[in-house]
Amino acid sequence: MPGSGATKGGLVVISGPSGTGKTTICKRLARMDPNIEFSVSATTRPSRPGEVDGKDYHFLTREEFASRIQRGELVEHAEYAGELYGTLKEPLERAIAAGRTMILDIDTQGAQQVLAAYPDAVTIFLEPPSFEELLRRLHGRNTDSPDKQQRRIQIARREMARRMDYRHRVVNDNLDKAVCQVYSIITGTRR
Amino acid sequence: MPGSGATKGGLVVISGPSGTGKTTICKRLARMDPNIEFSVSATTRPSRPGEVDGKDYHFLTREEFASRIQRGELVEHAEYAGELYGTLKEPLERAIAAGRTMILDIDTQGAQQVLAAYPDAVTIFLEPPSFEELLRRLHGRNTDSPDKQQRRIQIARREMARRMDYRHRVVNDNLDKAVCQVYSIITGTRR
Repeated sequence: MPGSGATKGGLVVISGPSGTGKTTICKRLARMDPNIEFSVSATTRPSRPGEVDGKDYHFLTREEFASRIQRGELVEHAEYAGELYGTLKEPLERAIAAGRTMILDIDTQGAQQVLAAYPDAVTIFLEPPSFEELLRRLHGRNTDSPDKQQRRIQIARREMARRMDYRHRVVNDNLDKAVCQVYSIITGTRR
Repeated sequence: MPGSGATKGGLVVISGPSGTGKTTICKRLARMDPNIEFSVSATTRPSRPGEVDGKDYHFLTREEFASRIQRGELVEHAEYAGELYGTLKEPLERAIAAGRTMILDIDTQGAQQVLAAYPDAVTIFLEPPSFEELLRRLHGRNTDSPDKQQRRIQIARREMARRMDYRHRVVNDNLDKAVCQVYSIITGTRR
């Protein structure tokens, strides 16, 4: 496949309920191909031990986040559990200008905001093999309280309901295969 | 990528010097896709602890192997270090008839024998990022005697010399990427 590395820059939006392997897939794609970058979100939530600013998240104060929104420096943002999360425009524009592909791992609401600003963004919805399997995976996170689990399931159901809005859908019934299918979509849009 | 699972049966030959990850890649492809089968070689060498007949190899006596060659039941065979290795025709024909893709992990000499019988076989040569990298990987196998290492390097050099005979060449500088590139070649030939 010589030439599959040749790119014009682009934006790829990946959504899907938590527990479908989105982050794992995005990280593997970024390691596979120097032209693929995995977007780092900005957040107001405090960093956890081991998290690196600029690598895991861009950690911002609430004031800084708010003034960046006002200056139009965020492509999308939303509030979860009292903390702000969003995507900074600058690294994204820089990647595209440099001919790289930037992948955003965001929810369906964020995806709508991104599409409003970048209508050519490639959208991929990552699905679990079945909703039953997803429930199994979400319940497997035993660190969560029953309340939090219920909330997760509710969110997952809401996310799944929007999957037909995406140009591509990939079922993650095998991680290697899902990685290849997403990679094939990304490289396919480059030609 | 719906529909990429729809296949007509076929034969894929993967060659490349040992140490380039051929076996790992073939095993991952077979796990990814129920339509992909990884061919099990026949051999006269004794089974090692843990090896399962019919899964790791088809273990045959020398007499049985010889009579199968005479009956034309092998697609290719060769002798290494006093033991016979080869590919049985029957499982291969069965896979193709069932619409599956059979992958053969064989050396360049075996590949020539297979192509003589199946001219439509898709041929893929798996290359290390560089010959220096290959030497590093081969030397890393510390269980081998210096003599055996020298022999391995000689064979690797001879195999590499034939790489232009293959329809596709994939450089394994990243395992995930190599898996995706081989998968893309296999599914691409199906359409």
